[in-house]
Amino acid sequence: MTTHQTAPTRFAEVDGTAYAYRRFGAAGGTPLLMLQHFRGNLDNWDPALTDALAADREIILVDYPGVSSSTGQPAHTVAETARQIIAFTDALGLTQVDLLGFSLGGFVAQDIALVRPHLVRRLILAGTGPKGAPGMHGWRQDIADHARADEPGGEDLLYIFFAHTETSQAKGVEFLGRFLQRDQDRDAPSSLAARDAQYDAVLEWGVPDHAALQRLTGIRSPTLILQGDDDLMIPTKASHLMAGLIPDARIRIYPDAAHAFLFQYPGEVAKDIAAFLA
Amino acid sequence: MTTHQTAPTRFAEVDGTAYAYRRFGAAGGTPLLMLQHFRGNLDNWDPALTDALAADREIILVDYPGVSSSTGQPAHTVAETARQIIAFTDALGLTQVDLLGFSLGGFVAQDIALVRPHLVRRLILAGTGPKGAPGMHGWRQDIADHARADEPGGEDLLYIFFAHTETSQAKGVEFLGRFLQRDQDRDAPSSLAARDAQYDAVLEWGVPDHAALQRLTGIRSPTLILQGDDDLMIPTKASHLMAGLIPDARIRIYPDAAHAFLFQYPGEVAKDIAAFLA
Repeated sequence: MTTHQTAPTRFAEVDGTAYAYRRFGAAGGTPLLMLQHFRGNLDNWDPALTDALAADREIILVDYPGVSSSTGQPAHTVAETARQIIAFTDALGLTQVDLLGFSLGGFVAQDIALVRPHLVRRLILAGTGPKGAPGMHGWRQDIADHARADEPGGEDLLYIFFAHTETSQAKGVEFLGRFLQRDQDRDAPSSLAARDAQYDAVLEWGVPDHAALQRLTGIRSPTLILQGDDDLMIPTKASHLMAGLIPDARIRIYPDAAHAFLFQYPGEVAKDIAAFLA
Repeated sequence: MTTHQTAPTRFAEVDGTAYAYRRFGAAGGTPLLMLQHFRGNLDNWDPALTDALAADREIILVDYPGVSSSTGQPAHTVAETARQIIAFTDALGLTQVDLLGFSLGGFVAQDIALVRPHLVRRLILAGTGPKGAPGMHGWRQDIADHARADEPGGEDLLYIFFAHTETSQAKGVEFLGRFLQRDQDRDAPSSLAARDAQYDAVLEWGVPDHAALQRLTGIRSPTLILQGDDDLMIPTKASHLMAGLIPDARIRIYPDAAHAFLFQYPGEVAKDIAAFLA
């Protein structure tokens, strides 16, 4: 069986755009499509998480158009990104998926669940927040500086992704080791143009808009909301807000953790997700 | 020192209305004013909770006008009840309180925190929810039947207040023993007129109104939100919603518990409240 480290990068063609993706794990049931964070590519997932999830289901990782190995133009809004990913699922002939969105990927996942509800069997929203919510209009300056650095390194990831405690930072260093392990057929880094387009999308999504919160009441898929107890990038309270308005939602908050709680506790998160999807 | 069981019932006069109240505990700091649930009176608090809280602060319990030993007319809206309680604090010469509202009392506490923010040093919202939130427009039929019974008894309280598990029901039976213990100067039962006025207020508060949720963003007091993990009367998700929109909020959910989690875990809840108020 192929794994996170051995799954080949494949391409799906939609109207002249080639979507880079990897597909691996136990085939047969509903596949789990995972939507990535700001600037992230196929390699930025934690293999400890994806391989644990792949034990009982098929996993699909994908680069948004214009990001890393995908061709095409990066979208400047979440709504356009959602349409791009819907086109990708159509190209693969997927009629139903479980959908996990992390951070920016969680914005996109919410839009997909609203625009094409029958596509999304179950929804997992990790380290993310709703359109228009308080505290979502861009990041605090120190986080923005590290996240938007021209050449971000391990230290930037540790600062953005993990709690500023010794224990969380140590878990972060372990994650850095894991996600750099793959040495064959690594994905291309994402460009500065992709960065800027994606930050436009983040800011547009976060423009304060109380009325837009009501969109959450239209999400029909059973939803699992996961977050660290002190996310410095997307306030943890945005997860409570989603749990308050999405009709069929449950929430789990992980202790001593920030944005990348799912790379800090990959085994526990995989277990919680597997229980929810079972 | 007087306790929950020995504190005399006193009266404060405002414009011809006599507010029945009890005041006990360690004087000196900011007093904790506690606002009661639907049909509840001075005796309906759990002495294990109030006495634990009274160890380091003064506690004030009060009957709303027209309820139990208070004279006057019961209010048909939360907004009017809030004005009544503000008048009561004025009559006692209180310029700042910590405010705990349980259920209907939590609706009133939110309104007070919005209408007179400088009165409320810290706010505790227990088993409650915001004006206009989804799932707040009255209670499900079985809960309404038990809560609105003409002569509610212990079994009704157990059904409404505690989770329908053996463990939670056993804790409920312990609570029934505690709150019936006081045998001197017990409060009068509340009337059917008070019941009907208060249920009007509950329904008016719960009329679906997405725009009204934005009121939560105007609460300036640091806020502690407490709830059972499966409240059958006021959906637990309403607590997550408050945690998502009140600017300075933290939330704690107690396991295997329903509406009256604070009478199920009185010691633990008192400890969490004391830590928050410290």
